[in-house]
Amino acid sequence: MTTSATQDGCLLIIGGDEQRNCRERILARFVELAGGPARNFVLLTSASEEPEEMARPYREALARLGVTRCDLVHTAGREEANDPAVAARIAHADGILITGGDQKRLMATIGGTALDQALHEALKRRCACLAGTSAGASAMAGHMLASGAAEYAPAKGAATLGAGLGFVQHIVIDQHFSQRHRINRLLSLIAQNPYLYGLGIDEDTALVVERGVGIEVIGDGGVTFVDGRTMITNAADIGEGEPAELIGVQLHVLPAGSGYLLPGEGTSARLHRVTREAPAPLHEFIRNLTKRNPLT
Amino acid sequence: MTTSATQDGCLLIIGGDEQRNCRERILARFVELAGGPARNFVLLTSASEEPEEMARPYREALARLGVTRCDLVHTAGREEANDPAVAARIAHADGILITGGDQKRLMATIGGTALDQALHEALKRRCACLAGTSAGASAMAGHMLASGAAEYAPAKGAATLGAGLGFVQHIVIDQHFSQRHRINRLLSLIAQNPYLYGLGIDEDTALVVERGVGIEVIGDGGVTFVDGRTMITNAADIGEGEPAELIGVQLHVLPAGSGYLLPGEGTSARLHRVTREAPAPLHEFIRNLTKRNPLT
Repeated sequence: MTTSATQDGCLLIIGGDEQRNCRERILARFVELAGGPARNFVLLTSASEEPEEMARPYREALARLGVTRCDLVHTAGREEANDPAVAARIAHADGILITGGDQKRLMATIGGTALDQALHEALKRRCACLAGTSAGASAMAGHMLASGAAEYAPAKGAATLGAGLGFVQHIVIDQHFSQRHRINRLLSLIAQNPYLYGLGIDEDTALVVERGVGIEVIGDGGVTFVDGRTMITNAADIGEGEPAELIGVQLHVLPAGSGYLLPGEGTSARLHRVTREAPAPLHEFIRNLTKRNPLT
Repeated sequence: MTTSATQDGCLLIIGGDEQRNCRERILARFVELAGGPARNFVLLTSASEEPEEMARPYREALARLGVTRCDLVHTAGREEANDPAVAARIAHADGILITGGDQKRLMATIGGTALDQALHEALKRRCACLAGTSAGASAMAGHMLASGAAEYAPAKGAATLGAGLGFVQHIVIDQHFSQRHRINRLLSLIAQNPYLYGLGIDEDTALVVERGVGIEVIGDGGVTFVDGRTMITNAADIGEGEPAELIGVQLHVLPAGSGYLLPGEGTSARLHRVTREAPAPLHEFIRNLTKRNPLT
């Protein structure tokens, strides 16, 4: 199976709380990335126990942006998520937004189902835009930040991983990042999983990922990358709950308006105003983030 | 003028709030570093407007540790700080603790005075231990973090520098670090001053600096180092208050119990249980922190 650039969809990884200052801006980009307001949209609320309430503000905002076809897909259990009729509704969507709630609920319900497969086909074969916010953002990674907290220091076992949707691999995604002071939670995971890149996305902020091309930060805040691949850590030798030592973590902070192309990619129609090649310290991070992972 | 190791004092840089869990532990080390409870101690309260109130818990804790000679030195203005009789009280002290308050008040009062000079002589000629907590910790650097806040993102002009005491150079020190979520404040300063190393010290935590030898973290939390010397940033090109992009910052987190010797330094009597040489990513940071800066 081969994929080409023209078949590639894109990701919009949103840090939550985009109902605030930049809702319209972020959702307007979502509509644009999906091909415009005449396209088919789906709100996937399986992370939440209150689908209607969760969907309402998005539905209203999309309507204001001119969207007329917005389907709410909710699955209370795996049986529904494996229902071909439900998967078919995803198969018709050009823009899919996975809303917030609890990423563990989301994955317990849809992970590995026909619906999950339909999401991957939308991204990798049908040029759709897949957006995820809050819990929906964390679930976009193959290794999903499932739960945990580390308020004042990175600590062993402070956060746990689960199996996510895997639109991006070798990365762990946290959201509400600066507002909930989550850098120590992300560093806790990196300390024990140094081959995962860490990505933290602020509230009211989103990262546009164009597969094979580049990235762009939009919204109100910024994104934080932590890269512990070459760090020195004692995480393997300390006890559960003990604070970890981390030496030589690479830290990158990109505010909204920042964006980079992969080396050799001249331009992008989807990434606004992004014309610069990524500087060397970001190459591997962006290359990994934009990698065209295969369908299965 | 030459200094030798035997004339070198040491620094105890405390992140504030050591009145909590680890007061006795941190102050016990202070007493030990000063040569034991029979020595002469000074509490320097010039950062505060309420010297007696600021000094009381330290005085009581030191008394519990067996200290019998504890002098309170307070200067309300520069005239007092230039009074040879006041400087003479510093000249007799083996352990000097600069208490919290406002580091700008401290420096406006004592910066460049006879008292300031007496502090440097205590550190560099008389083998004294100089401790600083909270405001007193920030003031120990030559470039002092004076004020400012950056809650959710590093931003241009978010924090300001002043002229500090300069016991350590090419470094900026922040305190109450993890508890007040100050990493973005420190990164704001690093973005505009990439030749300064950034040092953040948690509450109830202290960094022991033995000049020419090494460092040790003690107490309840940890210390964070940020090193932006090789980063890429747009700080020079953005407007005041705008969020800054930082690519390639080196981040190190050392919890209490961590400590390293400079390469080639075999042992240290002052640094407990510290027997390991610093790994390469920390060399320059520790070399700078422990550098024997000259007397003037």
